[in-house]
Amino acid sequence: MLQEIHQQPEAVRRTLEENAGRVRDLCAEVARRDVRLVTIAGRGTSDNAAVLGRYLFEIITGIPVSLSAGSVLTMYGAWPRVDSALAIGISQSGQAQEVVEAIQRSREMGALTLGITNDPDSELARAAEHVFLLHAGPERSVAATKTYTCTLAALYSLVAGLPAVHPLGEGLVEKLTAMPDQMGDMLEMAPEIARGMERYRYMDECVVVARGLNLATAFETALKMSETGYIVARGYSAADLMHGPIASVEPGSACFLVAPPGAVLPGLRETARALGERQAEQVTLSSDPELLALATTPLRVPFAVEEVVSPLVYIVAGQLIAHSLALLRHHDPDHPRGLQKVTRTR
Amino acid sequence: MLQEIHQQPEAVRRTLEENAGRVRDLCAEVARRDVRLVTIAGRGTSDNAAVLGRYLFEIITGIPVSLSAGSVLTMYGAWPRVDSALAIGISQSGQAQEVVEAIQRSREMGALTLGITNDPDSELARAAEHVFLLHAGPERSVAATKTYTCTLAALYSLVAGLPAVHPLGEGLVEKLTAMPDQMGDMLEMAPEIARGMERYRYMDECVVVARGLNLATAFETALKMSETGYIVARGYSAADLMHGPIASVEPGSACFLVAPPGAVLPGLRETARALGERQAEQVTLSSDPELLALATTPLRVPFAVEEVVSPLVYIVAGQLIAHSLALLRHHDPDHPRGLQKVTRTR
Repeated sequence: MLQEIHQQPEAVRRTLEENAGRVRDLCAEVARRDVRLVTIAGRGTSDNAAVLGRYLFEIITGIPVSLSAGSVLTMYGAWPRVDSALAIGISQSGQAQEVVEAIQRSREMGALTLGITNDPDSELARAAEHVFLLHAGPERSVAATKTYTCTLAALYSLVAGLPAVHPLGEGLVEKLTAMPDQMGDMLEMAPEIARGMERYRYMDECVVVARGLNLATAFETALKMSETGYIVARGYSAADLMHGPIASVEPGSACFLVAPPGAVLPGLRETARALGERQAEQVTLSSDPELLALATTPLRVPFAVEEVVSPLVYIVAGQLIAHSLALLRHHDPDHPRGLQKVTRTR
Repeated sequence: MLQEIHQQPEAVRRTLEENAGRVRDLCAEVARRDVRLVTIAGRGTSDNAAVLGRYLFEIITGIPVSLSAGSVLTMYGAWPRVDSALAIGISQSGQAQEVVEAIQRSREMGALTLGITNDPDSELARAAEHVFLLHAGPERSVAATKTYTCTLAALYSLVAGLPAVHPLGEGLVEKLTAMPDQMGDMLEMAPEIARGMERYRYMDECVVVARGLNLATAFETALKMSETGYIVARGYSAADLMHGPIASVEPGSACFLVAPPGAVLPGLRETARALGERQAEQVTLSSDPELLALATTPLRVPFAVEEVVSPLVYIVAGQLIAHSLALLRHHDPDHPRGLQKVTRTR
């Protein structure tokens, strides 16, 4: 897992470069057809990538997004009318049955289909009209890391190729090109993160809080913690946290805040103050001095990241946090109990 | 809270009856315009109702659904092109700013708009072109119960008035009419639920698992547990649980299963066996003998419920579970710490 975490800058660079032609083709097709809806299907880590995809499409391209509910198809045999949609299916193995079926059904209905996968010979790659390959190289760790960031890179490339209706989309291609280096910078925080996590050796549950674009980062960090550290971790939007679950935050409750620079920062400062009033432990990943001052364990990111691409960089720290916690708790992050690399659900 | 839980059969009956005309008007309008997308905005309990709405619309009417992400609008000032959509906003108080703004923006774009609220004089009622009132009567408990089931009733009425493309929609109006009585039957399980919960007096965290239509029931049960019992409770789709979080299930971990009859039952039996292998505690709300036999604490529902409307009935038991746990833990369910009736987030 640690090796694969470190391979990410290179893998993301390859994914950005190698898909350039395929991205151009698909974007031309999206322009030709009048695409009015994007649907995205994925499970687990791929679903977290889909959550970021939803914000990118809705904010930057103005196209509404529906995150697919697998059981609509697999349990009820139904599927909504997506004939004028771009239907995206994400599966690193390309074997997730629900995702393959969603793409097949959408394609039969006349939707434009895109498969995002790490395996060019997979069922998903055969099912979809367009395919973006992740170029992550073989991922051996059960906990997906580099296929997650490569999936994000693929989604960013697509959005960057479509007409932008929001300032967040300005200069996106250039910002993306700078990302592998910044992911490398984040990797250098590994020793500090390992030191910071020691205090949480016996933490059995926690919440991971973010808002907007980095909600995906919070979800994915929480998923890695539960997969490799067996921690009961839950990702929350700061707004959702305030609508009820905040009641279960007690003195000493562990709350991880993922807070890169951007539009959501003022709101997260409010959340941090509310958590402070409840005497929660705050582990804060940020470059914002005000948030770091409120933290029990500040993890100061010593460089600025462009808001729009921050999910690609900040998740690297999230992965390192989960990895450190697994080691501290004497779990083998490479062989999580009861999980296989390919999960078969319908 | 307990009083309001018991008022639900009457409140749901009123909601079904009093909105009949408004439902007809809106359904005629949906038919006239070519509605290709439904968007639903809500937070907390209202968001859980939206989750059920998504399954109902996609399965029964075949119209794809996008569950709105509030921050797209409030944090980034963006909003997707929803001009040919039916935009639904849910807020019992009608004061949730994000929801009001989502409806205002959607209406400006030319979407057909529907507000679902318990307050006819609220901002949401003024902002939306069409309004369904909940007729729940004043809800004084901070933890919403009757406004949740009345919101479900309003969503069911709407779906029942639209052309059905799936057998699950057959006879929906008649099935709905029978619901208040079945909710009353579920209320009679209160003493058994109170007894069954005693064992969980010191349970600090748990997961609540369901699939498909009752995912909303799992989310809402978990939310009530965290709001009133301060339990770290998380709702999961059985499929999502298997994609990672199952790793954090240990011997003795508490897992609540919400499993009414229907298409998802075979899958839930698989989940129950997987939890059994991990020696989890299973609290099972079901009428299925096989699932109940696998349970540590079987909560046997002694009557059959039609699958499509089961979320209206099974959530009553979920509310009673949360209420019992709060009392057992000496928390006052009517005054959860740190929560107000109207949560202000942007």
